[in-house]
Amino acid sequence: MIKSKRLFYLLPRLLAFVATLSAAAVMATSHETVTFFAVMRFEAKYSDTPSFKYFMVVNAIATVYGFIALFLPLETMVWSLVVVLDLVITMLLISSISASTAIAHVGKKGYSQAGWLPVCDQVTKYCDHVTGALAAGFIGLITYTILLFYSIHTTILHPLFTEKPR
Amino acid sequence: MIKSKRLFYLLPRLLAFVATLSAAAVMATSHETVTFFAVMRFEAKYSDTPSFKYFMVVNAIATVYGFIALFLPLETMVWSLVVVLDLVITMLLISSISASTAIAHVGKKGYSQAGWLPVCDQVTKYCDHVTGALAAGFIGLITYTILLFYSIHTTILHPLFTEKPR
Repeated sequence: MIKSKRLFYLLPRLLAFVATLSAAAVMATSHETVTFFAVMRFEAKYSDTPSFKYFMVVNAIATVYGFIALFLPLETMVWSLVVVLDLVITMLLISSISASTAIAHVGKKGYSQAGWLPVCDQVTKYCDHVTGALAAGFIGLITYTILLFYSIHTTILHPLFTEKPR
Repeated sequence: MIKSKRLFYLLPRLLAFVATLSAAAVMATSHETVTFFAVMRFEAKYSDTPSFKYFMVVNAIATVYGFIALFLPLETMVWSLVVVLDLVITMLLISSISASTAIAHVGKKGYSQAGWLPVCDQVTKYCDHVTGALAAGFIGLITYTILLFYSIHTTILHPLFTEKPR
């Protein structure tokens, strides 16, 4: 029983760790330079967009936390702290993914009313990188959300679960 | 004791309700039309931007939920559901505020690398409206976050609190 519980704890955490690590790494390496008419040079890199920078930092924090969480003992009071930290990480991930998706959407579709043209036709490789990072970040977010709802289910809905072992 | 607990429950929920209602209403009424050189016409309205539309819908949902939550009895099993719904609303609010803030930031500062010029100098009234809506939404989010952490504090960290009254 304890063993299967441990497995149920470890597998999604491992997935979340890999997802946030990939998201941070793919975003950090996304840049592309294109030249128009041999004179105009456009360099697209993630660090120019505050939302993408925020996304990278949040996923890096989530990666470090995810790594530490893999080695935490399940049967101690530390676990209450894990629930709170899971919540904080989930909130940060939602926030950074939403902001980055909003910007990426304008990059892809443009916003003609404001005269903002789509840029993804020019910097295809860069856009693919950002899309990949967002997808990885999204997998991390979904995993943390499931972990969080599971924690709340086992603690708030079944309060006796959290009683200290005698 | 019960009375002060009820007050502690009602006051922040009333604040959250008013904040999300204001956020939805202010965003829904934000539009401005400007004319350049008597021929070029630029109409800025929230419904043209997916993020702002999402923000309006989420705050409207939060308003309806916040209104219902005001009348829920504190001492029943409904309360466990309130914690879960608080979490869902908080996540939706974070997501919509982050996406809208990212777009509003580009509207204010522009993003020169992609050729996206700031538009707030042209549609000042519209930008002020959106800023006001974001500020109200932010107050709602902070209130829900405090309520959520308080719930987790009283249930997960002190599991006996959730024992059913005899």
